[in-house]
Amino acid sequence: MFREQIKVLDCTIRDGGLIHNYQFSDDFVKAVYGAACDAGVDIVELGKKLDVSEEYTREKFGKWNFCDNDDLKMVIGSHECENPPLVAVMFDVGRVDVANLKPADESPVDMIRTACYVLDIDKGIDLAKRSKDLGYLTTINIMASSAAIRTDLVEGLAEINECDEVDYLYLVDSYGAYYSEQVTDYLKLYRKYAPDKELGFHAHNNQQLAFSNTQQAIIDGVNLLDATINGIGRGAGNCNLELLLNFLKNPKFDVKPIYKIIQEEFVPLRQKIEWGFNDLYGISGHLNQHPRTAMRCRGDQELRDKCHDFYHMCAQSDDMPQV
Amino acid sequence: MFREQIKVLDCTIRDGGLIHNYQFSDDFVKAVYGAACDAGVDIVELGKKLDVSEEYTREKFGKWNFCDNDDLKMVIGSHECENPPLVAVMFDVGRVDVANLKPADESPVDMIRTACYVLDIDKGIDLAKRSKDLGYLTTINIMASSAAIRTDLVEGLAEINECDEVDYLYLVDSYGAYYSEQVTDYLKLYRKYAPDKELGFHAHNNQQLAFSNTQQAIIDGVNLLDATINGIGRGAGNCNLELLLNFLKNPKFDVKPIYKIIQEEFVPLRQKIEWGFNDLYGISGHLNQHPRTAMRCRGDQELRDKCHDFYHMCAQSDDMPQV
Repeated sequence: MFREQIKVLDCTIRDGGLIHNYQFSDDFVKAVYGAACDAGVDIVELGKKLDVSEEYTREKFGKWNFCDNDDLKMVIGSHECENPPLVAVMFDVGRVDVANLKPADESPVDMIRTACYVLDIDKGIDLAKRSKDLGYLTTINIMASSAAIRTDLVEGLAEINECDEVDYLYLVDSYGAYYSEQVTDYLKLYRKYAPDKELGFHAHNNQQLAFSNTQQAIIDGVNLLDATINGIGRGAGNCNLELLLNFLKNPKFDVKPIYKIIQEEFVPLRQKIEWGFNDLYGISGHLNQHPRTAMRCRGDQELRDKCHDFYHMCAQSDDMPQV
Repeated sequence: MFREQIKVLDCTIRDGGLIHNYQFSDDFVKAVYGAACDAGVDIVELGKKLDVSEEYTREKFGKWNFCDNDDLKMVIGSHECENPPLVAVMFDVGRVDVANLKPADESPVDMIRTACYVLDIDKGIDLAKRSKDLGYLTTINIMASSAAIRTDLVEGLAEINECDEVDYLYLVDSYGAYYSEQVTDYLKLYRKYAPDKELGFHAHNNQQLAFSNTQQAIIDGVNLLDATINGIGRGAGNCNLELLLNFLKNPKFDVKPIYKIIQEEFVPLRQKIEWGFNDLYGISGHLNQHPRTAMRCRGDQELRDKCHDFYHMCAQSDDMPQV
């Protein structure tokens, strides 16, 4: 697939860091940034930009939950790059203070992505507006769209469409629940109610469908695609960047630096932290449930491989986890 | 997806056995058969039906490479089932002797699937005809279609279409190379040149696309679908039966017995033998190459995680493995 407008956003650090509270070493983050540069990725998301507080400390939550400008500059300055990717960070509604945000022309950050649930879209729009006022590119990433009540989603899409300050609108498959025809259906809904917005897509791999659903989004005309190196990400992880670059034929991309960093950095990392498809995530994805119960079970030596027990608990119990 | 005509064929034993020369215990094979029965699977393939020879001994190649009728009866008789699945075995062109095959009404086997490369289609048709003469349901599974020269494939499809003795014709993605739109394209070709044949689809998971490509085949009208429990199969493995049953809404299917056997039998098995996606298979799939080089590297402690070196070897070497 070659379509000139396609842009790839690497969210390796931001989504991978969710696994272990952003306990990446500086050298690892630099290596990821360097690989993304050399691979020709368009945008690199290096973490979240939350506010430090007594509850959210840098020690406990890791520096890439906060993305101080000095930390970002340290990473960006570590790698020579002719056409460097844009740098993105993520806002979580309710955990950020825009008053602390410098104007874009004084910051290493180019894009601010605001993640919000459907019911918080107004708060998300507010953050996006204030980010745009400071000169940033903006996105709104509506989380857990598969579990939203359709009328709420439609209302939110229409509001976002009216907001000139939002550059990109994301369909996010937080639960890894979508089959390809559902990606198509939701994208149709997005286009119907937010026809003026450029769309993005962010997949999760609960049912081994992150890559194929990203392909489906491409087929359906989406031009901004999220992926992570080796599919790293919380729970079942994300669309594998290397598979996506193999699929895309745009000559600006080069997959080799991604395979190089997998071999050198991700293979050892896989011995320390876990991500990727397994039976439990397959079940939670199919049932359109938040993966938190599956993640908790995977962290329990007794329960981590009990997929049959897990299926019964999730699909048939009266006190099944609701989201 | 609910379509009444859809049939699921479990090839757990036949494809899984390729990993380790069919060294499954009888109890394991019985458990797989029982789970497939209870899950409502339509057809169960219990192995190959090769000829024993001095080279191909039962000791070295395992009893399920030969599927003696007594062995099959031992398995089938071990599980009470109201609507038992049909039993299939596979023929490999050049390694079978139809003279040793009993008529279907004296055999526990219902279906004989003949696997052949494009250039051996005439031999495959011969085996299918002789199997049909003995009363069996028949399929021809054209292997490595993604690497076939189109004119050869078209010629073969037309010949199969003329052969009334072939009940089903399979599109097989031996190298795990297809993207969804390629599945669609090849199925169109199959329909154009073999319009009278009911089609089947057999995927491999080299690029994490076995399940999604099977969905694509369903969308494109294929009604006979191969899958294996937990995706077991040589190399990157196959379409996961449990994911497929989750996707299909036909009330005859029940996924719970599959999750039960995964928990009880496949989790321990995964400690002993390896199957499933990894970086090397992703590369060989993308490059449309036979997975044998990737499998050999996975078996070598020094090379098994060297995806970058593997990429260079396969994509850029002058002596790249050709198939």
